[in-house]
Amino acid sequence: MLSEPVKRELTRIVAPENISFQPEDLLCYSYDATGRRYLPECVLFPHTAEEVSLILKMANAEGIPVVPRGAGTGFTGGSLPLRGGIVLSTERMTTIEIDADNMVGVAGAGTVTWDFAQKAESVGLFYPPDPTSLKVSTIGGNIAECAGGPRGLKYGVTKDYVLAVEVVLPTGELIKTAPGKTFKGVVGYNLTGLITGSEGTLGVVTRAWLKLLPLPEEKRLLVATFDTLERAGKTVIEIIKAGGFLPSALELIDGVCLKAVDEYAKMGLGGVGAAIIVEVDGRREVVDIDMEEARDICHRMGASSVDVAKDEKRMKELWSLRRAISPALKRVGSLKLNEDVVVPRTEIVELIRGVEGISRKRDVTIASFGHAGDGNIHVNIMVNKDDPEEVERGEASVGDLFELTLRLGGTISGEHGVGITKSDYIGMELNRDTLELMMRLKRAFDPNNILNPGKIFKEEGVGV
Amino acid sequence: MLSEPVKRELTRIVAPENISFQPEDLLCYSYDATGRRYLPECVLFPHTAEEVSLILKMANAEGIPVVPRGAGTGFTGGSLPLRGGIVLSTERMTTIEIDADNMVGVAGAGTVTWDFAQKAESVGLFYPPDPTSLKVSTIGGNIAECAGGPRGLKYGVTKDYVLAVEVVLPTGELIKTAPGKTFKGVVGYNLTGLITGSEGTLGVVTRAWLKLLPLPEEKRLLVATFDTLERAGKTVIEIIKAGGFLPSALELIDGVCLKAVDEYAKMGLGGVGAAIIVEVDGRREVVDIDMEEARDICHRMGASSVDVAKDEKRMKELWSLRRAISPALKRVGSLKLNEDVVVPRTEIVELIRGVEGISRKRDVTIASFGHAGDGNIHVNIMVNKDDPEEVERGEASVGDLFELTLRLGGTISGEHGVGITKSDYIGMELNRDTLELMMRLKRAFDPNNILNPGKIFKEEGVGV
Repeated sequence: MLSEPVKRELTRIVAPENISFQPEDLLCYSYDATGRRYLPECVLFPHTAEEVSLILKMANAEGIPVVPRGAGTGFTGGSLPLRGGIVLSTERMTTIEIDADNMVGVAGAGTVTWDFAQKAESVGLFYPPDPTSLKVSTIGGNIAECAGGPRGLKYGVTKDYVLAVEVVLPTGELIKTAPGKTFKGVVGYNLTGLITGSEGTLGVVTRAWLKLLPLPEEKRLLVATFDTLERAGKTVIEIIKAGGFLPSALELIDGVCLKAVDEYAKMGLGGVGAAIIVEVDGRREVVDIDMEEARDICHRMGASSVDVAKDEKRMKELWSLRRAISPALKRVGSLKLNEDVVVPRTEIVELIRGVEGISRKRDVTIASFGHAGDGNIHVNIMVNKDDPEEVERGEASVGDLFELTLRLGGTISGEHGVGITKSDYIGMELNRDTLELMMRLKRAFDPNNILNPGKIFKEEGVGV
Repeated sequence: MLSEPVKRELTRIVAPENISFQPEDLLCYSYDATGRRYLPECVLFPHTAEEVSLILKMANAEGIPVVPRGAGTGFTGGSLPLRGGIVLSTERMTTIEIDADNMVGVAGAGTVTWDFAQKAESVGLFYPPDPTSLKVSTIGGNIAECAGGPRGLKYGVTKDYVLAVEVVLPTGELIKTAPGKTFKGVVGYNLTGLITGSEGTLGVVTRAWLKLLPLPEEKRLLVATFDTLERAGKTVIEIIKAGGFLPSALELIDGVCLKAVDEYAKMGLGGVGAAIIVEVDGRREVVDIDMEEARDICHRMGASSVDVAKDEKRMKELWSLRRAISPALKRVGSLKLNEDVVVPRTEIVELIRGVEGISRKRDVTIASFGHAGDGNIHVNIMVNKDDPEEVERGEASVGDLFELTLRLGGTISGEHGVGITKSDYIGMELNRDTLELMMRLKRAFDPNNILNPGKIFKEEGVGV
């Protein structure tokens, strides 16, 4: 419980309009996309890094847990206040500066990713990372989780765009990890790379310097359907092997997803085994050539249909198929165990076969879709949340899936992080020596374990 | 001094043919490109990560310094055995495996970068990082220093290609930082990113999984000359601002370098103020369009001459201009204080003006060239090593240069690292809190400070 002097001091630091102890506010900051809930004792809305520094100094001295939070769209519980304490919302730190000549954007941690990308686009520049949540999620949250998205294959993920962060350490020091507007730098350790993807456990990012690219001139898109998921998976591999170009997106959607989308959006995809979406971008002179190559490969690999979008409108319609999956799946099962495993690209077909096997063995519906181009498949185990026996079978399927993934040389999370939902499984992927090293790093940053405690690791002293 | 039992145990670990205590061998492993010398007490040539693990376990228990070494081409002393002890050469770990379907290469740490890149190219794949030393330097050394090169602007630097490393920690544990053949992964902290560029102070990398790209179909190249360095610098900025494409190289060469090259190679560049080299690569259909755009910009910005290479042969001739700089500069001054500062791209002209000012103020010859496209300029302060007063003025110029660079929002090293040559200056760029955090990280990896001690930091306990 926060003492009265602590409450007064926190109120003094951020000003009364930027702090809340109201139950209705606490409730709003108690959950994320996992659906789990943990009530904080107060929510703070600092405007500056200096305020964040004062908050953390105090929390560190008093041993109060602090949980940084962007938009709370995470799938693994990263922003949940497991142990109460303070939720530190970055939502009032929303400055955006675009330095077009240097091709660098500077964003406050609470800036919505979409707003930042749009601002860059308005001056002809391109911020590629595109998590599905991008219209809601924040730059700070994306950095904490190292968010990905469909463009990862060609353009990489969030960490590939972070040039520097301004970050408050758990002990309150405010540092900047690199100059910010330079694209190279090897002075001291790569703190930018270490903090990105650390799930808010090593510091509170308050501002970020982000690399921008020239905006591609044109885009083209096709959707191809296949009678089997396996055939679709093999086509993905062939398209990348063709060389010459990397698609700006290469998505795979299985029959369960297609059926769900069709019931919802009536696109005539009910009986289809699987579909792939191929997007290419670049110079006007090239996108048509790339698209033709992709279409030829789809035909050669036995596609049932290939639909090439001829204009912007059709492109949007076809992409809407991909976007409709998540809402549509809600009809398939009331509880979605949403995993984002990654395997080497050549193992996609093996993964697909294995997932089908798990579905049969455990008698649960599994819907798979995702960024097949980089081997990152979102495997959704759909169960009825009111049927405890089915939920149990679903959870057993998660274990099976992770085992399969690791056997294929993969990782149990490509984009979502470990948080609390995967912390039971982290030992399947990382050995004891690696985990111990990581915990030593956590302690080097956060000796009193006050920042986002209980995430990633489950150990005493570092973790729950 | 190594005791007899330690010597016997080291010999047992690697076998007698992989260890040397001979003075002539020790001499060969006592220097790097800085020209400084420190004699080790023995040199080891392990073949496996397991041997490296046994060596480090022993060294950690006995408190013996271990300095990992690739080809010893570093400019900042990273591989120098400052405190004697063991030089651990990776040169016998040279396996290469190219997994073309997954577009991943796996290289032993001692693999020469050029050999690796050639092997990838033989199956139509592309490993972009291209430090000038690439025909000699090793993958392990490149990872330790996070080596860059002319392609950095478009393709990034070494860290952008390292998917995972197998690394032996200073305390002897052998870990692998990620699955290796997956392009995404957010399970635990980004150890791959932290170890890359850590100058051999956090672990001995024994093997690396490296991302490969499709090999670009075509390349085009132009060389443009200008009457002033300033005009050339402004042209660099304009070419990148033009959008549409990022050159695969964009190099700037000043008049001092051109004059030196001309005396050596007779290319008719004696009286020229500055030159830029623009290389573009990609699809056949696009490279000519990009090149035309670059040529138009050069003309518009007032180039004295623009020479577009029409074929492979001419392209090689023009690139040879860039490659000739380093040997040619040897005639200008017997001691080259070789710095690799980076500024935001828009500050290149300001940097150039400032460097000219330093040259006048300190009365020393300064030759600048480098990767202007990403703001990374190699500034070479040329002095006569037998004139102590001139050497002193040269060293004062280094301080001036770093001050100027930092004032312009830059960093004092883009590619070469800190090592020992820049450790006196690191505090100009990183504040106390940042340095202390980095030293805590060093201790979390290397509690007994046995691995490459005295590098980067100068502090007691961590450093000299």
